[in-house]
Amino acid sequence: METQPSHKSGSTHYDIVIVGAGPVGLMLSTCLARWGYKIKHIDNRAEPTATGRADGIQPRSLDLLRNMGLKSDVMAHKPARVYEVAFWDPPKTGDGKGIVRTGTWASCPSFIDARYAFTTLLHQGMIERVFLADLKKNGVEVQRPWTITGFTSNEKDPEYPVTVELEHVDGTAKETIKAKYLFGGEGGKSFVRDQLKIKVTHKDPISYVWGVMDGVVKTDFPDIKMKCTIHSEHGSIMVIPRENNMVRLYIQIASSTDADFHPRKTATAEEVQASAKRILQPYSIEWERLEWFSVYPIGQGISEKYTLDHRVFLGGDACHTHSPKAGQGMNTAFLDAQNLAWKIHAVEAGFANKSILETYEPERKDVAETLLSFDNKYAKLFSQKPPPISTVEAASNANAEGAAPTQENEFIKTFKEACEFTSGYGVFYKANALNWSPAHPAQSHVVHPASTKLVPGRLFMNADVTRVVDANVVHLEQEIPLNGSFRLFIFAGKPAVTAQALRDLASNMSRKGSFYSAYTRPDVDTVSHHERHNPHSMFFSVCTVFAEKRSNIEISMDLPALLARYNDNVYADDRWDRRFPDAKGTAHVKMGLDEERGAVVVVRPDGYVGVVVALSEGSATVDALNQYFGAFCTKKLGETQSQL
Amino acid sequence: METQPSHKSGSTHYDIVIVGAGPVGLMLSTCLARWGYKIKHIDNRAEPTATGRADGIQPRSLDLLRNMGLKSDVMAHKPARVYEVAFWDPPKTGDGKGIVRTGTWASCPSFIDARYAFTTLLHQGMIERVFLADLKKNGVEVQRPWTITGFTSNEKDPEYPVTVELEHVDGTAKETIKAKYLFGGEGGKSFVRDQLKIKVTHKDPISYVWGVMDGVVKTDFPDIKMKCTIHSEHGSIMVIPRENNMVRLYIQIASSTDADFHPRKTATAEEVQASAKRILQPYSIEWERLEWFSVYPIGQGISEKYTLDHRVFLGGDACHTHSPKAGQGMNTAFLDAQNLAWKIHAVEAGFANKSILETYEPERKDVAETLLSFDNKYAKLFSQKPPPISTVEAASNANAEGAAPTQENEFIKTFKEACEFTSGYGVFYKANALNWSPAHPAQSHVVHPASTKLVPGRLFMNADVTRVVDANVVHLEQEIPLNGSFRLFIFAGKPAVTAQALRDLASNMSRKGSFYSAYTRPDVDTVSHHERHNPHSMFFSVCTVFAEKRSNIEISMDLPALLARYNDNVYADDRWDRRFPDAKGTAHVKMGLDEERGAVVVVRPDGYVGVVVALSEGSATVDALNQYFGAFCTKKLGETQSQL
Repeated sequence: METQPSHKSGSTHYDIVIVGAGPVGLMLSTCLARWGYKIKHIDNRAEPTATGRADGIQPRSLDLLRNMGLKSDVMAHKPARVYEVAFWDPPKTGDGKGIVRTGTWASCPSFIDARYAFTTLLHQGMIERVFLADLKKNGVEVQRPWTITGFTSNEKDPEYPVTVELEHVDGTAKETIKAKYLFGGEGGKSFVRDQLKIKVTHKDPISYVWGVMDGVVKTDFPDIKMKCTIHSEHGSIMVIPRENNMVRLYIQIASSTDADFHPRKTATAEEVQASAKRILQPYSIEWERLEWFSVYPIGQGISEKYTLDHRVFLGGDACHTHSPKAGQGMNTAFLDAQNLAWKIHAVEAGFANKSILETYEPERKDVAETLLSFDNKYAKLFSQKPPPISTVEAASNANAEGAAPTQENEFIKTFKEACEFTSGYGVFYKANALNWSPAHPAQSHVVHPASTKLVPGRLFMNADVTRVVDANVVHLEQEIPLNGSFRLFIFAGKPAVTAQALRDLASNMSRKGSFYSAYTRPDVDTVSHHERHNPHSMFFSVCTVFAEKRSNIEISMDLPALLARYNDNVYADDRWDRRFPDAKGTAHVKMGLDEERGAVVVVRPDGYVGVVVALSEGSATVDALNQYFGAFCTKKLGETQSQL
Repeated sequence: METQPSHKSGSTHYDIVIVGAGPVGLMLSTCLARWGYKIKHIDNRAEPTATGRADGIQPRSLDLLRNMGLKSDVMAHKPARVYEVAFWDPPKTGDGKGIVRTGTWASCPSFIDARYAFTTLLHQGMIERVFLADLKKNGVEVQRPWTITGFTSNEKDPEYPVTVELEHVDGTAKETIKAKYLFGGEGGKSFVRDQLKIKVTHKDPISYVWGVMDGVVKTDFPDIKMKCTIHSEHGSIMVIPRENNMVRLYIQIASSTDADFHPRKTATAEEVQASAKRILQPYSIEWERLEWFSVYPIGQGISEKYTLDHRVFLGGDACHTHSPKAGQGMNTAFLDAQNLAWKIHAVEAGFANKSILETYEPERKDVAETLLSFDNKYAKLFSQKPPPISTVEAASNANAEGAAPTQENEFIKTFKEACEFTSGYGVFYKANALNWSPAHPAQSHVVHPASTKLVPGRLFMNADVTRVVDANVVHLEQEIPLNGSFRLFIFAGKPAVTAQALRDLASNMSRKGSFYSAYTRPDVDTVSHHERHNPHSMFFSVCTVFAEKRSNIEISMDLPALLARYNDNVYADDRWDRRFPDAKGTAHVKMGLDEERGAVVVVRPDGYVGVVVALSEGSATVDALNQYFGAFCTKKLGETQSQL
């Protein structure tokens, strides 16, 4: 399906060397392996993670895993699912001893339009193995236990500018590798980052020591299968349910604000268990099995740079460290890797200018900055007296727009931000060549119709639609897999209204020099008729969505040949939604697109909106798309057309 | 989790010998293996099905597979999903040549409350392998290629009355087995049935010759991914989409109503392909790959008996043969096996009298009779001129109750019956000791409250609820796996209203001689606190559902200890449903149970309703349940109580 990037044969030349096989390294490796790159992937551990470490997959990350076809493999391990967070505090009445439940929050309330409104809790090692199995299918095996001992990067060698020295951890073997890229995903103590002399900035001067314990318990505490934040006169604890009847407890052991703080302060498992027993009173807790226990100091750190030369990159914990409270570590790592993966592919496969690699650091560092400041805010939110249940319910159901700025609304705002952020749906990227804004070179009256609710740099919205060819009800946002292609969603309104606009769209896309035709597959004449997503170009996949009943759509009549070729990707926007009960085309209405006239939505390969363009008769739509893609692609677009 | 049935050690004594490893044999084997029985399972084929044969899993069968934890393994093969059926006929206008689409039907319309409103199409061999893998986990491997050469059954040997002679198909080895039961699931040409001299009755004197072809095609026929019935001047064909871009075509080659009929009439693949090309005109079709082709005569046959002595049983195609049009073969086989499996288990594990085995034949033969008469009706429905789309839409949306008996409503009736039947939700069992009716020994004013919409002998209804301990939104009907236990669903209305009734229920269940206490696990004092479904008895699993918000339910306070022990099975009936927008407890309302006062629903181990009893204060509820179970269980119930 994918173009095979050309690379030198021989065992010492690779497209990329990836150091570290945790979530960030595995996500990057898995994407690039699927797209045909030659990868040297090493890890200094002899085996994948056996116990402990990260375990939270946020709702949006589950979307991403599904988009890669990996969700069912993850869910096969029967992870715990957290739908609500419970708060326990000392009672306000009586002697004030013990704890009582003072409130619960939905972890991902219904105002967030999530497919999977829960957090998935599963041992990191099981998640790593899902990626490792996929890598193996594509011929990549992680080389263990190997480590990196040095590297240089020199653009004077235009093809393989990076040289990397690798060594078996016991020193028995060495390799010198030539590569196009090097990625450091080795965690907080990154060798690559240290060699580049990139500093880590500590946003919050306070640092902490945390204890974390996984095990199987016997308890009468009623919320042991919920995520809980428990404050008591004996200290605080966080409860996270896990697969296989396990539970994880987080206990803050020390803070740099303590009088006797020492970053090496520690505690034994027995001490933490004794502490948990005191905190949970009047409930009892006994351990049947202790699977993992660790104490670690943690500070809020952020790497000042993610790359110096756009050849050697960093990602994941190598770039940002923070508390485990919001369960963001693995999720942020996944998104770092995915963001970099498609950009490297776009450059190496010949579609995009090298300059798009410059968007990796600002896009992802901005998210990390938000995460760190949020981590503080969230901690505060957790440690505050929780508001009454009615307030939380109001917040869960509220449409904050237009509400008066009262104290309650301040809470609603923080609460909504918190939920959006922790769910992963709050991540957004600022304006640049990829994310349209009024400052973008694509300047046209058809760009960004006023009504649209889609925001460039934010995720494309979820929508149920009916596939025309087989009447299957599907999730539109999942219909194009993570294949490295830009996604063109043609919302085509009513067939009778848009017939001419669709013909004009197709004919202008077909013109020599259009964004679409300029990147035609060299093998376009021999592509199988079963090829669903990339029949014409490796860089574009196309979906068409009519605001019409399925039975009224006839693909061969309602679509010009170029679009009809994507016949498996034609949909009827005919599903009822409680939130838009009167919509004729729910997806059109939800996204703020004209139900009659539609619009074209360009979605980046990672699922974030690039630009929205009105679907107009004549050449204006394709002209605008040429301008949009022309801002970062390798060819000059629209030339032929302007000569006509 | 399960009690291990006692059996003689030694390699010649088995609980059951199962002949045939198609869908019926594998379902039976899988259930019994999970419940700890010793099984000799043979098949005369050297390998599982390689190509072709049955491929349709109906919506209700998918529920069943999920209840066994096997659905995700089936879906991992990415089967085709049929949501709609399209009808193609010669055009009424012009020269009448070619074909046009004259209508489409939902395959499982919304009036059927299906979880999965589609038919799943997957090669039988892949489905067999899912079962074989599960069997292997429980230590059972199918012995191949072996066949049965003789058997005797003699109740004078009370423990192992059945003797079975087995032989390797090439005659190189023989075994003589002593067993408690023998099951013939060898298909239409059953040796077991023939030996028992059980006749096959042909319901419809007409027999047919069918051709069936699986392959990958290139076509411009727009509905190649839908289920289609195509009539043309050149003949008729049925199109069924399959996994891996395959399509199955069924062509009727001959009918005994033809002047030149011969049951051995045949056709080559090329002839069938040429015929398909003519039928599909003006559309083109070319084969890229032919996976399987077969021609077979088929008649509507039904076995007169399913057993003679309740030791040797038949099921699946050995009992009933019919056309493949409605896609019922594998589904009916599954249900035959499941019905027999739990009854054998209930008897052998010591809960039920042997007499419940006598319900297997009438329950399943009645379904087979319905299938055969339906097969005719359905064929007629297919071959008729399809009604206008508006009529079908009316039928799909109609609430037939109260409508006037016009011609259109006759169609609606047939259509609804057809959809219910083919989806599997229409299967129902008539009154007997297991399925309560006014003639049942359980006679009490609390039995079968007038308002209930649940029907003994029909499936328990689907319902979304929120699990209290972890706030997970779950499918109530799936919360108890196929574990061989009767399911007590205690719909507990409002906690404030039912508090006394629940205490009385628990205390009467606890009394010596109650249906519940009479079958206490011998190891009840040492059962792990992690045991979720069978903490007290192997024969009962209990769920409690309050018509209350989750956050208002406190298990330890709202439930007596016996019911609180099932704390993972306590639910809030707090999910909104479009069909019951004003319900406070959707599941209560949907099932016609009092939202305040609730009711107790007994569901058979196979998911069919046994009896509904009002939840009343005092002993009436348990008295009625004692009467219900007393009709078929091994112990005399309620004795102690009546002495009080």
